[in-house]
Amino acid sequence: MKALVYRGPNKRAMENMPRPEIQLPTDAIVKITKTTICGTDLHIMKGDVPTVNEGRILGHEGVGVIEEVGSSISNFIVGDHVLISCISSCGVCANCKKGMYSHCESGGWILGNLIDGTQAEFVRIPFADNSLYHIPVEANEEGLVMLSDILPTGFECGVLNGQVKPGDSVAIIGAGPIGLATLLTAQFYSPAEIIMVDNDDNRLVVAKTFGATQVINNSLGNAAEKIMALTNNRGVDVAIEAVGIPASFDICQTIVTAGGHIANVGVHGKPVQLNLDKLWSQNITLTTRLVDTISTPMLLKTVLSGRLQPAQLITHHFTLDQVMEAYDTFADAMTEHTLKVIITNSDFTVQV
Amino acid sequence: MKALVYRGPNKRAMENMPRPEIQLPTDAIVKITKTTICGTDLHIMKGDVPTVNEGRILGHEGVGVIEEVGSSISNFIVGDHVLISCISSCGVCANCKKGMYSHCESGGWILGNLIDGTQAEFVRIPFADNSLYHIPVEANEEGLVMLSDILPTGFECGVLNGQVKPGDSVAIIGAGPIGLATLLTAQFYSPAEIIMVDNDDNRLVVAKTFGATQVINNSLGNAAEKIMALTNNRGVDVAIEAVGIPASFDICQTIVTAGGHIANVGVHGKPVQLNLDKLWSQNITLTTRLVDTISTPMLLKTVLSGRLQPAQLITHHFTLDQVMEAYDTFADAMTEHTLKVIITNSDFTVQV
Amino acid sequence: MKALVYRGPNKRAMENMPRPEIQLPTDAIVKITKTTICGTDLHIMKGDVPTVNEGRILGHEGVGVIEEVGSSISNFIVGDHVLISCISSCGVCANCKKGMYSHCESGGWILGNLIDGTQAEFVRIPFADNSLYHIPVEANEEGLVMLSDILPTGFECGVLNGQVKPGDSVAIIGAGPIGLATLLTAQFYSPAEIIMVDNDDNRLVVAKTFGATQVINNSLGNAAEKIMALTNNRGVDVAIEAVGIPASFDICQTIVTAGGHIANVGVHGKPVQLNLDKLWSQNITLTTRLVDTISTPMLLKTVLSGRLQPAQLITHHFTLDQVMEAYDTFADAMTEHTLKVIITNSDFTVQV
Amino acid sequence: MKALVYRGPNKRAMENMPRPEIQLPTDAIVKITKTTICGTDLHIMKGDVPTVNEGRILGHEGVGVIEEVGSSISNFIVGDHVLISCISSCGVCANCKKGMYSHCESGGWILGNLIDGTQAEFVRIPFADNSLYHIPVEANEEGLVMLSDILPTGFECGVLNGQVKPGDSVAIIGAGPIGLATLLTAQFYSPAEIIMVDNDDNRLVVAKTFGATQVINNSLGNAAEKIMALTNNRGVDVAIEAVGIPASFDICQTIVTAGGHIANVGVHGKPVQLNLDKLWSQNITLTTRLVDTISTPMLLKTVLSGRLQPAQLITHHFTLDQVMEAYDTFADAMTEHTLKVIITNSDFTVQV
Repeated sequence: MKALVYRGPNKRAMENMPRPEIQLPTDAIVKITKTTICGTDLHIMKGDVPTVNEGRILGHEGVGVIEEVGSSISNFIVGDHVLISCISSCGVCANCKKGMYSHCESGGWILGNLIDGTQAEFVRIPFADNSLYHIPVEANEEGLVMLSDILPTGFECGVLNGQVKPGDSVAIIGAGPIGLATLLTAQFYSPAEIIMVDNDDNRLVVAKTFGATQVINNSLGNAAEKIMALTNNRGVDVAIEAVGIPASFDICQTIVTAGGHIANVGVHGKPVQLNLDKLWSQNITLTTRLVDTISTPMLLKTVLSGRLQPAQLITHHFTLDQVMEAYDTFADAMTEHTLKVIITNSDFTVQV
Repeated sequence: MKALVYRGPNKRAMENMPRPEIQLPTDAIVKITKTTICGTDLHIMKGDVPTVNEGRILGHEGVGVIEEVGSSISNFIVGDHVLISCISSCGVCANCKKGMYSHCESGGWILGNLIDGTQAEFVRIPFADNSLYHIPVEANEEGLVMLSDILPTGFECGVLNGQVKPGDSVAIIGAGPIGLATLLTAQFYSPAEIIMVDNDDNRLVVAKTFGATQVINNSLGNAAEKIMALTNNRGVDVAIEAVGIPASFDICQTIVTAGGHIANVGVHGKPVQLNLDKLWSQNITLTTRLVDTISTPMLLKTVLSGRLQPAQLITHHFTLDQVMEAYDTFADAMTEHTLKVIITNSDFTVQV
Repeated sequence: MKALVYRGPNKRAMENMPRPEIQLPTDAIVKITKTTICGTDLHIMKGDVPTVNEGRILGHEGVGVIEEVGSSISNFIVGDHVLISCISSCGVCANCKKGMYSHCESGGWILGNLIDGTQAEFVRIPFADNSLYHIPVEANEEGLVMLSDILPTGFECGVLNGQVKPGDSVAIIGAGPIGLATLLTAQFYSPAEIIMVDNDDNRLVVAKTFGATQVINNSLGNAAEKIMALTNNRGVDVAIEAVGIPASFDICQTIVTAGGHIANVGVHGKPVQLNLDKLWSQNITLTTRLVDTISTPMLLKTVLSGRLQPAQLITHHFTLDQVMEAYDTFADAMTEHTLKVIITNSDFTVQV
Repeated sequence: MKALVYRGPNKRAMENMPRPEIQLPTDAIVKITKTTICGTDLHIMKGDVPTVNEGRILGHEGVGVIEEVGSSISNFIVGDHVLISCISSCGVCANCKKGMYSHCESGGWILGNLIDGTQAEFVRIPFADNSLYHIPVEANEEGLVMLSDILPTGFECGVLNGQVKPGDSVAIIGAGPIGLATLLTAQFYSPAEIIMVDNDDNRLVVAKTFGATQVINNSLGNAAEKIMALTNNRGVDVAIEAVGIPASFDICQTIVTAGGHIANVGVHGKPVQLNLDKLWSQNITLTTRLVDTISTPMLLKTVLSGRLQPAQLITHHFTLDQVMEAYDTFADAMTEHTLKVIITNSDFTVQV
C-alpha cells in the first residue's frame, strides 16, 4: 500500500509498504479515507522527536472504515465508519481508569510515532474498542478529521484546563491550527472576551472570523503591554499558551490576573523562567497536558448538532498521491496561508 | 500601650505607643490576649518587605477580646472573644465575593504591614465583621492563635490547592511551622503516604509524631532521588513547596507524577526554572496562593471538635514584656528547636 | 411618593406612601428608574405568601440611582446607577461567606416581602454594599432589570445546578419568563439540544426564537413520552423544572437519563412523589435552590459584552402611574402574550 | 463444583454445578478463596429481584486466584491474586468512559444476578481486565472481600455523593454493614460530627467503636427530633440514607440543613414523598447511585496502607460447605449480631 515514510531528518518518501495486519485481539485495521498533517509531523521531520525511527509511517489523525477487527473487539464491525483518535488507550490501566489516556501504560501517543500511522492506505489501531469512535455515514468526514487531535487538544489542554467560564476574559497566544481550535472550543463557555495573539496577520484575520473579540500582532513583542492596556491593567482570567516557546509563556505569566489560569498547550523544547517571586501570592493555576481525547464523544456531539464547525479549519486539499506536496504546503504555512490540509485516499471509492 | 515596633532593617524595639482608635464604622478595637511571631516578621526585620515602614507595629496573628466596635459592626459586641485573621477583607469587593480575600481591593494582608499589627496590647481591625471570628470563652486560646495564619495557609495553599485525596502520596518540602501545619491539615483527606523533607533532624522527628509516614533529611540535596526510590520511580500525587527557594521548587517538579499537583506555599524572592520541556506533556497542575482564610470557619470547627490540635505546634511561651527575647528564640529556631512561640499579654487579666 | 401597596388577598392599590429613610449605616436609598412584576408578586396577591403583611410595598426587581447612603457604605456614592438584587445579603454571616446569600441570616428575599419593595419611586436597600451592583450610565436599563431576579434564578437554580455541559441534551419544563431565562443562560454552555415544554403555543414560538432546538406542547400531558421518543428512549442529561407543580416534576423524573440531573427552579406549594424505587440506582442528582444572585457580576459582564440580550424578555411597557394596569396585563399572560413588563418611574427625569 | 444455587423464592441449595468456562476473550475464571453474603442476596431469596432466575449461583463479592484467562486479557495471568468487583464493566462503552460502570451497556451488576456468581468454587468474570483488581499475596484477604461491594457502595453512594467535607456534621440513617461502611469511609474527610441512627442497640455500640460521635436509637421514631436538638435546630450538612424505606428517607429530608446534601444509598422498593413545598428554597442536593466501583483502586490503597481496616466489619466465619448455615446467620442479624460473614473455600489450599 502507499504510505508516507520517515527516512531520517528532513527525508520523507511516498513508498509502497506492506499492509498492516491484526497483531492482538484488541486491534482493528482501518482503511483511511481522510487524513491530515500535524505540526508534530513537522517536528518529527526535523529530527526533533527521537522516539520516531527511520522507516516509520507518519500520521496520527484520520477517519476511515473498519477493514478487519481482532477477536475481542466488541464495539465495531467491518464496514463501520470511524474517527481515529491520536491517542491509543487500553482503557483499563490505572491512568486510563482516571481518564488520563495520554499516559496509558501501553498506549498514549504511539500512532505515527512508536508504530505506523495514518498517512497511508491502511492503519492498524491498537485498543480499537477504546481508541476509535463511530461516525455517521453521512457526516462531513473532512471536518471530523479535526477531531483526531487538534480540537480535543485545544479544548482539553486549553479550554478545560484553563477553566474558561461565562463572562471571562481569555487570551490565546498563537493562532495556528491548535490556537484556532482553542478559540473555537473556548466559545462553548461564552467568555466575554477572547484576545488572539500571533505574528501572522492572515491568521489574525481568520481568528476574527472565528470569533476572536480582539486580535494583536506581536511582531514587535509588545503583546503583553497591549493586553494589559486592553484590560485596564487587570489582565485576563485565562491565558492560553499555544506556541511552545519561552516568549509566549512569558506573555501568559505577565498578563494573568490574580486568581487566573495559565493553560499550556504548546510543545516546549526548553525550560522557561517562572516568576514565582511575583506569582507566589497571585493565586494562579498553571496546567500542562498532553491531550487525553476524553472529550471526543462530547466534541462529536457538538459537531453533529452543528454547534461546532471544524471544517472551517481546512484550507487545502490533496490526494494521498500528493502527500509530499501536502507536506510542503503545510510546512510553508505563512506563505501559503495554510491552516489544516486534508489528504484523501482517492483510491478508496474504487476499492469499495 | 506596649508594642513591638519595626525601626528599620535589623532594628526593633519594645516601645510605648498610642492606643489605636476606631477610624471607620467597620473597625473594631481588640485587646490582644495571645499573639505570636511569623516567619514573615523575620523577613520584615531583614528589610525584605519594602511595604513596611519604620515605626510600624508588627504582627498579624492573635486572639483577643473586643474592646470597642465601629457603628456598622453587627457580628460582634464588646467583650466577645475573637480570633484575628491575618487577612483583612471587606467581603463586598469583586475579589472578596469570589472568596479571594487575599486580594481584597481595600484589605488583604495589611496588619503589621500597611497598618499597625497585633504584637501590642491593642490592635485596630478593619472590616471587623468579616475579619474576626467568634471563639468560645473556654477554648484553648493558644492553639487558636495558630488559626490566624499558619493553619489556613498550610491548608488552603498546600492541601486544598494540592487537591490532596484519600489514598494519595504527598510530599511536603519544608518542615517549619507552615510545612507542619500543612502536614496536620493534609490528614483531613486521608492520604496513604506523607513524606516530609527538611534539613533539620529535629523538625523531622516532630513531623513523625505529627503523622508523617516517611521523613527525609535533604542536607545532601538528594531528596528527589530518595522520593523517587520510595515511590518505585512513580513520584508523588501532590508535591507541596513550603520553603520558598528554587531548590525546593525543583524537588517538587522532579517528583510530581503524571497528572499530579505542585502546590506552592513558600514565599519566593527569586524566579525559578520551570522544566516545561519535560512537564508540558505530564498533565500537572501548579498553583500559587496567598492565604484567603476562607477556611477559617471550617478549621475552627475541626479544632473545637478536637479533630485538629494546633497547640502541638507551640514550643515556647513568653509575655508581651519578653517579646524581644521571643524574637530571638524564634529567629534561632534550629538551635532552640523553636516552632511557634506564644506571647501572652499578661497585663490582661488585671485589666479586665 | 407613589407606590404599589398590598392590601390583603386580591387587593392592591396605588397609594401615596412616605419616602423611605436610612435606618442602618449599611442602608442605601435608591430612586427607582425601572422596575417590573414577578410571578411571585401574583402569588402574594393571591394571599399565598403569609410573610407579606397588609400595607407592604411590593416588588423586588429594578434599577435606579443612589439617592442617599448610610455611613458605612463604601462601594457606592450618590448618583451611581445601580442594579438592585432581589436578594439582600450582609456578606459576612456564615451562609453569605459560603456564597449562599439566599439564606443570609439577616437578609435573603426580604424586599417586597418583609420590608418595602421596588414598585415605588424610592426604596431602601439594606446591606447595600453587597446587594447593589454598578451599571454603566449608558447601559440598556430595561434589559438589566431582568438581572434582578429571573436571569440569576434561571441560571443558578437551573443551569448551574443542572450542570449543563457542552453537548448535553437539556429539557426545560415551563416556558414562562423563568423558563425562558433558563433557556437563554443554558446556551452559555453550548448544549447540543434544548427541548422546551409548555402548554402555551405562543411561548413555545418565543422559545424557538430564543434558541430552543425542539418545543413540545404538553396540553395532552404526553411531554414525557415525546421526549423519550425524541431521545431514542435515552432521556435527557438535564431536566429543569420551571413551573412548580407535581406534574412537571414528574416529567423531569421520568425523562432524566442515568447519571443525569434534575434541577428544580419552580416554587412548589405541595409535596411531590419521588420514584426512588426506580431512581435509587440511576445515579441522578436532584437540586433545589432559592437564587443566591452570586452570578450577578458574571451575568452583568455577559450582558455588557452583548453575549446575553435580556431585553428580548420584555413584551410590555408601563409607567409607574400605570402599575395597576401593568399587574392586569402580567396576570393575564396567556391572552396578552405577556412575558416581562417594564414599569418606568417617568417622573424621574423631571426630578433630577 | 460446589455452589449455592437459588431455586426460587425462599429456596436455596448447596449443589454440585459444572465449572464455568471462558466464553469470550475478555473473560477470566477465578478460583474463589473467600466470599460473603450481601443484603441483596437476602432480597433475591425473598423473590424480590425478578431478574434472578431459578438455577442461578448467587454472590457478587469475593477474592480469589486467576485460574484461566481469555485471549485478550492483558492485566492478569494465571495465579494472580485478585479482588472481584461486584460490578462488571467493559470500560469502553459511553457510560464506562464516564466512569459510570454501574450502567455499563453490557455489564453492570450481573454477577449472581444475570450470570452465575461467587458463592461457588469458581466463577467466570466478564471484562476481567476492568473488573478485577490485583491484591498482594500477603494481604488480609478477608478484609479485602469488603471491597467487592460494601465499602465502595458506602463510599461512593454515601460519602462521595454526599460531598462530606472536613468539619461537616453528618448523619447516617442505618447502621447495618452498608451504613457502617459509610461511617468508616466518611472519616476519610474528617467531618466534625457523625451521628448514627438505627433501631438495634448492638449496631449502635459497634458504630461508636467505628468512630460515630453520636448514636441514636430510633425505635420510637423520633430520630429526626433528636438530631435537630443535637444540632441546635440547624440540622446536618449531610444526611445519608442507608436503609431503603420511606421512613428513613423522611428523616433525611427533615434534618438536612440549607445548602446540605441527602445521599441515598439504600435500595428502595417504593416511592417516597419529597417535601418540595419545604425544600424548593433550601438549596439541597439529593443523589442516588448504584455503586460504580471506580473508587476501588483508591480504597485498596487506603487498606494496604492501614488507614482503613475493613476486617472489623466481619463477625462470623464459615466454610463454603457451611454456606447454608452462613445464610441463616446473616439473615438473623439482630439475634446473631451479624455484620458480615466470611465464607472460605476450604478445599482451596489442598488443590493448589
